[in-house]
Amino acid sequence: MQTLPDRQKILDVRHLMAGKVHRTPVMRCSTLDSLTGASLFFKCENFQKAGAFKFRGASHAVWSLDAGQAARGVATHSSGNHAQALALAAGMRGIQAHIVMPENAPKNKIAAVEAYGGQVRFCQPTLEAREQMLAEVLEQCDALEIHPYNDYRIIAGQATAAAELFEDCPDLHCLLAPVGGGGLLSGSILGARYFSPGTKVFGAEPKNADDAHQSFHQGMLIPVDKPLTIADGLRTSLGSRTFPIILEGASDILTTGEERIIEAMQLIWERMKVVVEPSAAVPLAVVMDHPKLFAGKRTGIILSGGNADLYNLPWTIPAVVTH
Amino acid sequence: MQTLPDRQKILDVRHLMAGKVHRTPVMRCSTLDSLTGASLFFKCENFQKAGAFKFRGASHAVWSLDAGQAARGVATHSSGNHAQALALAAGMRGIQAHIVMPENAPKNKIAAVEAYGGQVRFCQPTLEAREQMLAEVLEQCDALEIHPYNDYRIIAGQATAAAELFEDCPDLHCLLAPVGGGGLLSGSILGARYFSPGTKVFGAEPKNADDAHQSFHQGMLIPVDKPLTIADGLRTSLGSRTFPIILEGASDILTTGEERIIEAMQLIWERMKVVVEPSAAVPLAVVMDHPKLFAGKRTGIILSGGNADLYNLPWTIPAVVTH
Repeated sequence: MQTLPDRQKILDVRHLMAGKVHRTPVMRCSTLDSLTGASLFFKCENFQKAGAFKFRGASHAVWSLDAGQAARGVATHSSGNHAQALALAAGMRGIQAHIVMPENAPKNKIAAVEAYGGQVRFCQPTLEAREQMLAEVLEQCDALEIHPYNDYRIIAGQATAAAELFEDCPDLHCLLAPVGGGGLLSGSILGARYFSPGTKVFGAEPKNADDAHQSFHQGMLIPVDKPLTIADGLRTSLGSRTFPIILEGASDILTTGEERIIEAMQLIWERMKVVVEPSAAVPLAVVMDHPKLFAGKRTGIILSGGNADLYNLPWTIPAVVTH
Repeated sequence: MQTLPDRQKILDVRHLMAGKVHRTPVMRCSTLDSLTGASLFFKCENFQKAGAFKFRGASHAVWSLDAGQAARGVATHSSGNHAQALALAAGMRGIQAHIVMPENAPKNKIAAVEAYGGQVRFCQPTLEAREQMLAEVLEQCDALEIHPYNDYRIIAGQATAAAELFEDCPDLHCLLAPVGGGGLLSGSILGARYFSPGTKVFGAEPKNADDAHQSFHQGMLIPVDKPLTIADGLRTSLGSRTFPIILEGASDILTTGEERIIEAMQLIWERMKVVVEPSAAVPLAVVMDHPKLFAGKRTGIILSGGNADLYNLPWTIPAVVTH
């Protein structure tokens, strides 16, 4: 798919993915509503297969291949949720997935990719080495590259999360999605455009990786330089396909600091009893930082993933909440 | 209510509690199904108000008081989920709750009770001191005691969790509930008796606090002696009202060890992305220990609560799951 997904395309993707992708629930939390003054609707993509929304895009990419393409297998370089999602999606279709990972990737992430049937190819932990290794794999195996976000098939897949949310929760004033490479945010913007045009869509981004904020406000792609954020899923920069959608359709890109991200993550664990990874807590952190913008508003939040490191939690004391 | 709740009573309680108590979702997990060979249906009482099923019984007890009784307020001694549940339920009805807690209770539990509007009365950390302090509070304040489990109003409230599960998931072969004082298990047995008579109900208990197992098999109440288990909600012994229901209606009381409880808790966090406390993981641990009994069976599990200590997790390395 080389063109921007239209309304019918998103409907087709939902139809194609039915039964393959979880229709995740929407959760509410009265404590967090009181705390923020907003009415929050959490779309729980942490409960998605492979633990993150990434499975939507990866599944769509894999299932949209024709038989001849599928037989060649798929490949990507990723040490994050896209790696697990693509491995699982390929495994479900019965085709090979070659995943290039840095040799210092966390052991549990490597194990998860292998458990889903992915072929892990290790490389040096630099972007150059990853791209070179991926190029080799693509040539040797004749596999097809599935980019984690700069691909309209991926964007169309990610759009289904927002589309489901709008169906379950009509009349949302706002929707917030975390923004790294921009696949989820651009998909959410298309979802709102086609299915809930009255909803304003905001990107939520760590201050320490604010390339989307800068790019949006300066009107040109400004890649992030050495991002230092706990939100490991948001360290990437926007791509040539995601940026134009975001520039045209986002209401704003709002940023937040590291301490607030950790506080928001902790509140979600403590009060909602759900496991989210740091990136998924960034939208709530943004709402907490911008109370006037969201007070009294029906506000959707995409809890993007739950693949947190349970062995190294970023807090030592309970969060304090006043009722 | 001084008599065993009948079918109509449970229906009345559900009606009375509608809108006051969350109708919690049922979750599934393909990884845990593969691991156990069973088809597991998890009733998520960790998402219940105040973080545990205890809110059902406490709410019912509070709302079944007449106006004159309610004006006197309620009281209990508890350092666990019943304390928070009763404080919140009383707060929602606008009446006083006096909660006797040991002075060494965890600060976050004390803070939670106070945040819900409960009046905390501190005592020495012995059962004797707790009972004496409660007696004083009952006399001074003319408040009504709400026992955490040995009370038919409480049992009828807890029964609504199983009743909802049977409505959402018909034809369950088995249902497992953790057993401490027996309020949830006896409620689950009544729920099955009235709404799903084909379902076998099992109690799930730590080996290190196996009073229900012993009492069930010897046909007499045998209180637990110095239980040492991580499942802090299950350290209490059966009572005079819960034991007869369990003796008559349970298919068995199955026990499991501490390491297995921790492994099951870890799997639920890692794979289902939900926060449960150790007691809530005991039924899954039992299923893992008795694979032949549950293989191929539609098996309900009540995830009893999510008030885990996020600052002192009982694991250091990832759980290993083979697919």
